[in-house]
Amino acid sequence: MNPHRNDDIKKLAELIKDIRIAMLPTADSDGSLRSRPMATQTQAFDGDLWFFTREHSGKVDEVNREHQVNVSYAAPSDNRYVSVSGTGRIVTDRAKIKELWSPVLKAWFPKGIDDPEIALLK
Amino acid sequence: MNPHRNDDIKKLAELIKDIRIAMLPTADSDGSLRSRPMATQTQAFDGDLWFFTREHSGKVDEVNREHQVNVSYAAPSDNRYVSVSGTGRIVTDRAKIKELWSPVLKAWFPKGIDDPEIALLK
Repeated sequence: MNPHRNDDIKKLAELIKDIRIAMLPTADSDGSLRSRPMATQTQAFDGDLWFFTREHSGKVDEVNREHQVNVSYAAPSDNRYVSVSGTGRIVTDRAKIKELWSPVLKAWFPKGIDDPEIALLK
Repeated sequence: MNPHRNDDIKKLAELIKDIRIAMLPTADSDGSLRSRPMATQTQAFDGDLWFFTREHSGKVDEVNREHQVNVSYAAPSDNRYVSVSGTGRIVTDRAKIKELWSPVLKAWFPKGIDDPEIALLK
């Protein structure tokens, strides 16, 4: 256990707190990389990052193949660039989806929270 | 040859023209991904993207191992997110370095354009 873990979490939470969209690079089966914008949770970061996604999508296949993931956050207006690396996992627990759901997500999921395609990338 | 190549280049040039910093994700030998902010060329995009880097650095080793590269551009203020995938190559041609050099790069290379460590990621 890293004794500075709580400080690290606080620092990262501070760095990313007002950045709503992160970029998620993933590798395709042929090794080619691509990145996509992902809506971050509106809740404060407490050690896990959560992103809403569709359960059946290219990025979910790619995260399931490569468990090592990276997300980057950019706030050019104050020259803040953050890279976070870790292990990714797809979560389809409905209680967790309900806990993190925010009405702004209707832009991506017009059917709302009951859309069976909604999944989380943890 | 893609007949729309010129239109595609113009469109991409327009999308990224005022974004000075791109994120470059690379995979380490153990498969872990990380991203770093990279200063983009100040010249308009004409089909190749150029980034200044140090010749002996982790990212150069990683690009040399994995020729498939990706860079992403984020302009949150107008909700613009761009991912560009392609083939990466390290270029140490001094004439090209001179052509692309801009005084703002002294922030990364205090010794200036004659620093022998300066290289380009094409």
